[in-house]
Parts: sequence; structure tokens; C-alpha cells
Amino acid sequence: MTKSITSPVSVRGPADHDVRDQIVAAATEHFSHYGYEKTTVSDLAKAIGFSKAYIYKFFQSKQAIGEVICAHCLNQIETEIRTAVEDAERAPEKLRRMFSVGVQASLRLFFRDRKLYEIASSAAGGRWHAVLVYEERIQGMITDILQEGRRTGDFERKTPVDEATMAIYLVMRPYLDPLLLQHNFDYADAAPAQLSSLVLRSLSP
Amino acid sequence: MTKSITSPVSVRGPADHDVRDQIVAAATEHFSHYGYEKTTVSDLAKAIGFSKAYIYKFFQSKQAIGEVICAHCLNQIETEIRTAVEDAERAPEKLRRMFSVGVQASLRLFFRDRKLYEIASSAAGGRWHAVLVYEERIQGMITDILQEGRRTGDFERKTPVDEATMAIYLVMRPYLDPLLLQHNFDYADAAPAQLSSLVLRSLSP
Repeated sequence: MTKSITSPVSVRGPADHDVRDQIVAAATEHFSHYGYEKTTVSDLAKAIGFSKAYIYKFFQSKQAIGEVICAHCLNQIETEIRTAVEDAERAPEKLRRMFSVGVQASLRLFFRDRKLYEIASSAAGGRWHAVLVYEERIQGMITDILQEGRRTGDFERKTPVDEATMAIYLVMRPYLDPLLLQHNFDYADAAPAQLSSLVLRSLSP
Repeated sequence: MTKSITSPVSVRGPADHDVRDQIVAAATEHFSHYGYEKTTVSDLAKAIGFSKAYIYKFFQSKQAIGEVICAHCLNQIETEIRTAVEDAERAPEKLRRMFSVGVQASLRLFFRDRKLYEIASSAAGGRWHAVLVYEERIQGMITDILQEGRRTGDFERKTPVDEATMAIYLVMRPYLDPLLLQHNFDYADAAPAQLSSLVLRSLSP
């Protein structure tokens, strides 16, 4: 409680963002050690050295903190995919890279480096806002690649773009969604190439 | 223990099968009420009214009973798929039916009617023999349809058959494997048709 008196919370401005970032960083660390589900805001407060009330000044709930962590994580995956896609010259190669880099980045962020699996699966299972935004952006990326490939003549133009986008998204989804990806480790190396080839055959003009 | 004295276990023959069937039927009932993981062979023995030792004369372990139940369940799904496929005239329609009936039968047997989800997920997670056999048969069915479609000129012939088979299997797998299917309920109605169309576009000559 003393924190809320000496804190910069009454001065609205950049300082608030600093405190929010500090809470998010500490929570990320804590969640990846002890798990998201088991941790309460009280545990978090103790670990960070803030009062529970002070944390609630910045975040309405544990999920609100989780949402920020989840959004960071999904943004990072999205950035890696975008970078890989931009590096490719033509639409078919863009689609291949989107799939392979998406799977690699998801495996690394959800399961290996950051151990954010539990928070990512809560987010995916609960259809958090960050997840919906991410899914929409992934679908948008597929549409962009499809339209580019149609312009350059690499892809067929008969199938409605939204139908083709959704079907390709459904092919990728089991390797991007952490709830599905956890049961696909045995396939995660080979499947992206095999499925990209199938998808590209489906797009041949 | 009295059971093992009065039982037909010393007379090898059809009677053994009757007892095995009786144990499997009772275990199926018990597992779908109380769950596979939580149930022990002792619980099962009590519920059936047999001694534990008597059950062990017929099955080496709980998993051995589970394997039989699982094999029954997967055989039923396979039979439903085969019947639907045989009813279709041409290869493209066979592929569509294989996907849609496979998903419907899996949803019904794993999750609705028989509530065999828990045993099916133990089987899928542990790669039980029955699961490996089933996966091979599903892949065999895909190969058969592909080869029929190539003969009739409905499908392209450039892609190696085993490559096309595996890619199509990977597209179907998230809707047949209970571990993945549990996270695909929202997609289980629309995805089979959308994905079948994509697969058929990939096969166009």
C-alpha cells in the first residue's frame, strides 16, 4: 500500500507506461516460471514487490496483464513472419516462408525460449482479443499474398479470394494455434513444406 | 477369486471370447462414466463383479482393455467412412465424403454418444497400436481414391502418390485425431467442405 502513495500513479503520463511495462516484464518472468493459471495477482504482487492494490491501478485483472504479454508474443511472431515474407520475391515463395517461419516462431515463443505455452493456450482457448486480432492479421497476410500471386499470374483467379484465404488459413492453423501445435510436434518439421506444396498445387493457374 | 474356479478359463475356446467381450463391454460402460485415466483395474473388477486376478487372466493391463475398446471405436469410424466412400461414384466425391463422414463419425464416437474421448486421447497421445493401424488404413484409403481418380482422369498424375497421400492426410488429421479435434469444434461443420475443395483444387489435372 505504501507504493501507491510514493508511486507516480497520480501523475498521468509516460511514468504510467514505465510502471505498466515493469509489471508486464515481471509478470512474464513469473508466469514462465510458475505458470499462468496457478499464479494469482497476489502472488504477482509479492514477487514484484508491489501491493496488489497498486497492480490493480494499472490492470483490471490477471487476464489484462496476460493479454498484454500475449499480444507482445503474437506481435513478435507476426513481425518474424512479415520480415520473412518481405524477403521473398514471388508470391509462392512468400506463402512457403509464411508457413515455415510461422511454425518455427510459434514453436520457439510458445514452447521453448519463453515458455509462454500456458498463457498462449489460455488466450487461444478463451479467444482473447489479442488472438482474434492476430488471426485476422494472419488471414490478411494470406489474402495479400494471394492477390499478389493473382496479379503476377502465379496463382489461379477462379476461386473467390475469401474462400481461398480461409481454406489456406485452416491448413496453417494447426501449426500456429498453440493448443493444436502442442499435438503436432512430430509433424512440425516436415508438415509445413508438404502442406505448402499442396496449397501451391491448389493455386496453380 | 471364486470366479476363477467356476469360470470357463481352463476350457480354451469360444467361452474365453465371451468373457473377454463381457469385460470389454463392462469396461467401455465404466470408462465412459468415470473416465479411463482415473479408473484402475481394481475399480473395474469391483464394477463388473469379477476378481482383479480373473481380469488379469484375460488382459495384461488396463491399457490392453483400452486397446480393444479403442480398436472397436476406430473400426467403427473406418467402417462408416468406407461405406460412405463406396456409395460415391467418382473419386472427387469419395474424397469429400471421406473427410465429412470421418469428422462426423469421430465427433460422435469420441465426444457425443460413447464419450470415449478420454480413452481415445490416451490412445492418440500414447500412439497405441490400434491408432497406428487406423492411421495407416486412413492413408491407404486416401491412396486408393487418388489412384482411382488418376485412372479416371479426374486427378493430376505429376505429384508422387505417396507425397500427395501424406499431404492430404495432414490436412484431414486435425479433424480425425481426438487430441486435435477437441480444439476444432468451432470449425468441424464448415472446415471439411472448405478443405476438401482446396484438396480437390490441388488435384485438378
